[in-house]
Amino acid sequence: MSTASAADANVKVQLPDGTIAEHPSDTTSLDIAKGISEGLARGVIAAEIDGKIVDAVRPLSDFAEGDTPVALKLLTSRDSDSLDVLRHSSAHVMAQAVMRLYEGVSLAFGPTTDGGFYYDFDIPETISEEDFPKIEAEIKKIIKAKEPFERQVLDRDEARKLCADLNQDLKVEHIDTGLSEQATVSFYRQGEFVDLCRGPHIPDTGKIKAIKLMSVAGSHWKGDVSGRPLQRLYGTAFFDKKELKAYLERLEEAKRRDHRVLGKQHGLFAINPEVGSGLALWLPKGARVRVTLEDFLRKELLSRGYDPVYSPHIGRVELYETSGHFPYYRDSQFAPLFGSEVGGLLDAWSTRLEKGELDQDGEDKLMAAVEVLGVELPGYKPSASTEDKQRVLHDWQKENERYLLKPMNCPHHCHIFKAQQRSYRQLPLRLFEFGTVYRHEQTGELNGLLRVRGLTQDDAHIFCTADQVEEEFRATINLTKFVLESVGLNNYRVQLSLRDPDSSKYVGSEENWDNAEGALRGVLQDSGLDFNEEPGEAAFYGPKADFMVSDCIGRSWQLGTVQLDYNLPDRFKLEYNGSDNQAHRPVMIHRAPFGSLERFTGMLIEHFAGAFPMWLSPEQVRVCPLSDKSIEYAVQVGKQLSDEGIKVTVDTSGGKVQAKIRNAQLDLVNYMAVVGPKEAESGALALRDRIDGDLGSMPVAQAVAKLKKEIEERTVRQVYQGSGEAAPAIEGDAKGNEY
Amino acid sequence: MSTASAADANVKVQLPDGTIAEHPSDTTSLDIAKGISEGLARGVIAAEIDGKIVDAVRPLSDFAEGDTPVALKLLTSRDSDSLDVLRHSSAHVMAQAVMRLYEGVSLAFGPTTDGGFYYDFDIPETISEEDFPKIEAEIKKIIKAKEPFERQVLDRDEARKLCADLNQDLKVEHIDTGLSEQATVSFYRQGEFVDLCRGPHIPDTGKIKAIKLMSVAGSHWKGDVSGRPLQRLYGTAFFDKKELKAYLERLEEAKRRDHRVLGKQHGLFAINPEVGSGLALWLPKGARVRVTLEDFLRKELLSRGYDPVYSPHIGRVELYETSGHFPYYRDSQFAPLFGSEVGGLLDAWSTRLEKGELDQDGEDKLMAAVEVLGVELPGYKPSASTEDKQRVLHDWQKENERYLLKPMNCPHHCHIFKAQQRSYRQLPLRLFEFGTVYRHEQTGELNGLLRVRGLTQDDAHIFCTADQVEEEFRATINLTKFVLESVGLNNYRVQLSLRDPDSSKYVGSEENWDNAEGALRGVLQDSGLDFNEEPGEAAFYGPKADFMVSDCIGRSWQLGTVQLDYNLPDRFKLEYNGSDNQAHRPVMIHRAPFGSLERFTGMLIEHFAGAFPMWLSPEQVRVCPLSDKSIEYAVQVGKQLSDEGIKVTVDTSGGKVQAKIRNAQLDLVNYMAVVGPKEAESGALALRDRIDGDLGSMPVAQAVAKLKKEIEERTVRQVYQGSGEAAPAIEGDAKGNEY
Repeated sequence: MSTASAADANVKVQLPDGTIAEHPSDTTSLDIAKGISEGLARGVIAAEIDGKIVDAVRPLSDFAEGDTPVALKLLTSRDSDSLDVLRHSSAHVMAQAVMRLYEGVSLAFGPTTDGGFYYDFDIPETISEEDFPKIEAEIKKIIKAKEPFERQVLDRDEARKLCADLNQDLKVEHIDTGLSEQATVSFYRQGEFVDLCRGPHIPDTGKIKAIKLMSVAGSHWKGDVSGRPLQRLYGTAFFDKKELKAYLERLEEAKRRDHRVLGKQHGLFAINPEVGSGLALWLPKGARVRVTLEDFLRKELLSRGYDPVYSPHIGRVELYETSGHFPYYRDSQFAPLFGSEVGGLLDAWSTRLEKGELDQDGEDKLMAAVEVLGVELPGYKPSASTEDKQRVLHDWQKENERYLLKPMNCPHHCHIFKAQQRSYRQLPLRLFEFGTVYRHEQTGELNGLLRVRGLTQDDAHIFCTADQVEEEFRATINLTKFVLESVGLNNYRVQLSLRDPDSSKYVGSEENWDNAEGALRGVLQDSGLDFNEEPGEAAFYGPKADFMVSDCIGRSWQLGTVQLDYNLPDRFKLEYNGSDNQAHRPVMIHRAPFGSLERFTGMLIEHFAGAFPMWLSPEQVRVCPLSDKSIEYAVQVGKQLSDEGIKVTVDTSGGKVQAKIRNAQLDLVNYMAVVGPKEAESGALALRDRIDGDLGSMPVAQAVAKLKKEIEERTVRQVYQGSGEAAPAIEGDAKGNEY
Repeated sequence: MSTASAADANVKVQLPDGTIAEHPSDTTSLDIAKGISEGLARGVIAAEIDGKIVDAVRPLSDFAEGDTPVALKLLTSRDSDSLDVLRHSSAHVMAQAVMRLYEGVSLAFGPTTDGGFYYDFDIPETISEEDFPKIEAEIKKIIKAKEPFERQVLDRDEARKLCADLNQDLKVEHIDTGLSEQATVSFYRQGEFVDLCRGPHIPDTGKIKAIKLMSVAGSHWKGDVSGRPLQRLYGTAFFDKKELKAYLERLEEAKRRDHRVLGKQHGLFAINPEVGSGLALWLPKGARVRVTLEDFLRKELLSRGYDPVYSPHIGRVELYETSGHFPYYRDSQFAPLFGSEVGGLLDAWSTRLEKGELDQDGEDKLMAAVEVLGVELPGYKPSASTEDKQRVLHDWQKENERYLLKPMNCPHHCHIFKAQQRSYRQLPLRLFEFGTVYRHEQTGELNGLLRVRGLTQDDAHIFCTADQVEEEFRATINLTKFVLESVGLNNYRVQLSLRDPDSSKYVGSEENWDNAEGALRGVLQDSGLDFNEEPGEAAFYGPKADFMVSDCIGRSWQLGTVQLDYNLPDRFKLEYNGSDNQAHRPVMIHRAPFGSLERFTGMLIEHFAGAFPMWLSPEQVRVCPLSDKSIEYAVQVGKQLSDEGIKVTVDTSGGKVQAKIRNAQLDLVNYMAVVGPKEAESGALALRDRIDGDLGSMPVAQAVAKLKKEIEERTVRQVYQGSGEAAPAIEGDAKGNEY
């Protein structure tokens, strides 16, 4: 704390205000805070040193290099990075409580997620939600004890021994297999609990002001379904009880908006295992929303110089070998449709040969089996090389036509490009299709319309010259903006994914990349959109921009995407005739403003809680006759509205008009047109807005004009505004703050 | 010829005018004709006796039953049934000529087709078109000789011996296998040529006034691709050289309209074996036509009370086992997508077991092979019954999820019906979808867009009560009429296919069938449409009506279809809650006005010879600047038209305006808008109609109004009117006048 003597052992510290001071080398960030004020010190959660989040209790000299001052920022609960530290420490505290309460606990991993944290355990006893109060009570004791987090660094052998002594066999395995290249590893200890961990952590357990266990689920060691089964305990934590309460309310709100529940309740879509898991059946109401979205986008695209195309949902496997989608993505694709009944067997045979999993005996048995089914493999010699044998199997497949359900539309669109002579005069050529593709997602990952096995992309591929990339990118960004804002999604930012300059895993020339990335950055800067750059996140074939959209309760969705591609034009040898009368290779841009109709609609259902704005609504008006005497007039009004293109139904169910109105409200119909003898006499209807209530009686023509205006202007009203807080995801991917 | 004595041996004959006369029993139809006039006798081709076409030279007593007069109609070249007789005889004459010219000819079959006839031969020498003059010369000799056709009836053994003596091994095989249930068979002889044949034939070869060999192609014995390879010689024949000339001209016209050629030339569609045979890629221009057709029909359907739905392109195999489409139609379906690599093998295994084609050794070998790949079949016991073993294999498949590319949309739509509680109040429920289905047609049968492996049906399924069938049928007939007439297809008739009253191969109650058939007949009678009834042609699940449409060169196309179905609602156990609060089974109606987008568009391309009427046209207007100086104004005019929804392009290619106009004409653009400095000054364009030529200069707004009117009214102009003669099909299905 003294700046008196400039001893060698001292460390120079620069604060955010620019002041530089010298401190003894064992000074910690917390010490610095205490020097400023005791209050600040009590609030310190962690420190950011030279841009890296670290424990507030680590000596600053750990981070010093030579005479350069370390840049220190003290993090309190008001800093956004602090929450993650708090939650990670909470995972440790939860694990400590579990170990106190249960016998034979093997610890796996305990990372944070978007909404909180979890810890995976192998415990002989099965934990259920009924056990939560007991565990939470134990957690509270630990918090009350304000146990400090202590960091300890061991060399690998010591670390291994420590874990073995603690009977933590999974940790031992991880040191052996996952950390085999590290010389030392760190541990964190609070009270009697010690865990292999990269950190950082809060100074002591007392900083956890609000914590709650959320759920328990099955998981597997290192996420491998064939690995050891574990129990995953989810929790969340905050600096403040009010924040926890708000979070839980938002969770409730999200649950209320669950598109799977609303989809069933309002007859929007159905998924039936008898048809197939992950294969959506769009019921009439959901299909009407989709028709509206498709019509809307098709009109936009046609007016923006796009050309429609249609392509089949299958293609020969060789098509995807050319594109590189097969066998590379094989695990996430449906199995090929083999032209022959032994096709699958021959494929398996080839794979086993490649992996060296087939001995002579096995090979003989397979050979015998295909002979039984009358298949001959004349060129196949057991003594030949693996490659030669594979070639025989592959050639046989080729002759017997294997098809693949298409996992993407690009190969077909490349062939449409190739189907005609192309001149530079035709570029940019923008081919669009609502193309349904099929991907074999894991059963456990399927989630209503949000994660499906058959999805319809609002796909397009733009073939253009390198010079045209910037203008086309600008146009696609503008299109995506327009599309999102048309459905009322005004809260988004763009993530620009660039190549990692150090990496060689990209195709295409440096010059192309530099130009393309520069152009993309320039367009985004000009656009005034909120965007961030993510180096190293580009696809191997080109940079991309993704729209990250916030819905009305603050959750973030990755929707529209724009991707440059230097790869497929090469693989498919695409060419156009340039103004120099030479053959040139075009650049390809993949883009989809919705992403997929399934995911987009699923998201809209949640965003609007099923109550679609007028222009997207599957039932815009319901005519409710005052009594059965007015049914005839009601039907006539229905016809008038329908002739004007309004989506209208007539409630002929009988009963009281109040019940009809209530049902229409519950069915989320935008407007009710109440009609009785008075209205029949004057050619009127009494309009009732689902949101604003009674709008009074008016001539039918006036109502039509009002309703059509709302449809044509694509007005989006009354979307729940939420608290604007962080996304209330319960479960998410681990954030990787574990080793 | 005498009516003097009423001897027992006489035969009574009634002529179409009602007169009845008695003749000696050996009197022939030709004798009757001679009795009327020698001129008539020379013109007689065949006779229609009691509604059946027979040889004019057969004794009338062959057809007499008791004392009832036989109803005789003499057929001359003016009767439509005569042409078929002439052509069948021509096939015999061609075969006679071939046998004179070639050694070792084995005769297969020689039926007539829509456009002529063919004969399949096994000939050691290969026939090419270069041999046609030689064969035709020999045919002419036979015609000149006026060889009479003589009928002879033999018992089976004699017939077999005759064919064997003639070295006609295929005929022997056919007697043994195809005619094994007949006691006697007939032969026809002209000159030295004799052929097993059901007849009837012309009196003598001299009646053939115009005959021409058309083509030669490979075929197989009884159409089985694994059967003996044969050579098929196609020809055609007429009563008049002028008719042959007109036919050949229509053929040329049909060739000029070949949608495969036009499709390539105008960039409408492409089929590429690298993507897959029979899988159409819709290029931008073709896709624009399809978008227009789909938009048009979707709007119609929505305004007619249909509900849109979407369903995936695959479904679990069990879905099609429920519907009965699998394994029944397996040969015309793509192979299943097996969830496991040994799926195909297990399926083959099960089939072989069922057919008894698998011995113990083979079973052991298959078992060994699946073990090599790590698949266990725990319940499988080699000693068990075939059924039990199949069950094990089937259960394993079920667990490993087999999918099928959907061959039809009905099973999915049944599940959409089932996805919600259905009340009688919701019926009729009309679910529509542009549903792409996949069928594995034989490679040789593929034909551009007309016969494909992936086709998009404008499919809908109406679920209704039995009482609603009539009204729904009426509505679908009206819809189909409307759709066909909107594209200018005004020349059609309806074929009503009814059940065969004798047969028991139909599902559904007698009462349902009677009511349904009566309702359908009544609707067609009311409609004033030209229709014919075809008993025995109904599907097993219900009666149907097909629209047979004549195109502008007189060819007939089966397009729209409406089918009642009593079967699928049972199989899927569909139910609705009736007004009696009881569960009832709905009736289902399948219908598709286009049939499929592929076939319909292919037909339209040929019908319009690629020159689509304005409303369907992929390029309605091309703006042609007088010179490069007017490009700016041309682009501005293009924008104005495009903003009005007109499909417009601007020719910026440079060069002379005459060349631009010529290119637009060749590209079949409906209108050209020529613009120069004068037009730019006054905001005008000079409109040129592809059909009528120059329409003069007019303000842009006036042109827009004119063009939009033509689009909105769906005007169809200038379709080639042809000669109204019979369809000029070259190749067609055999008409079945062979045994």
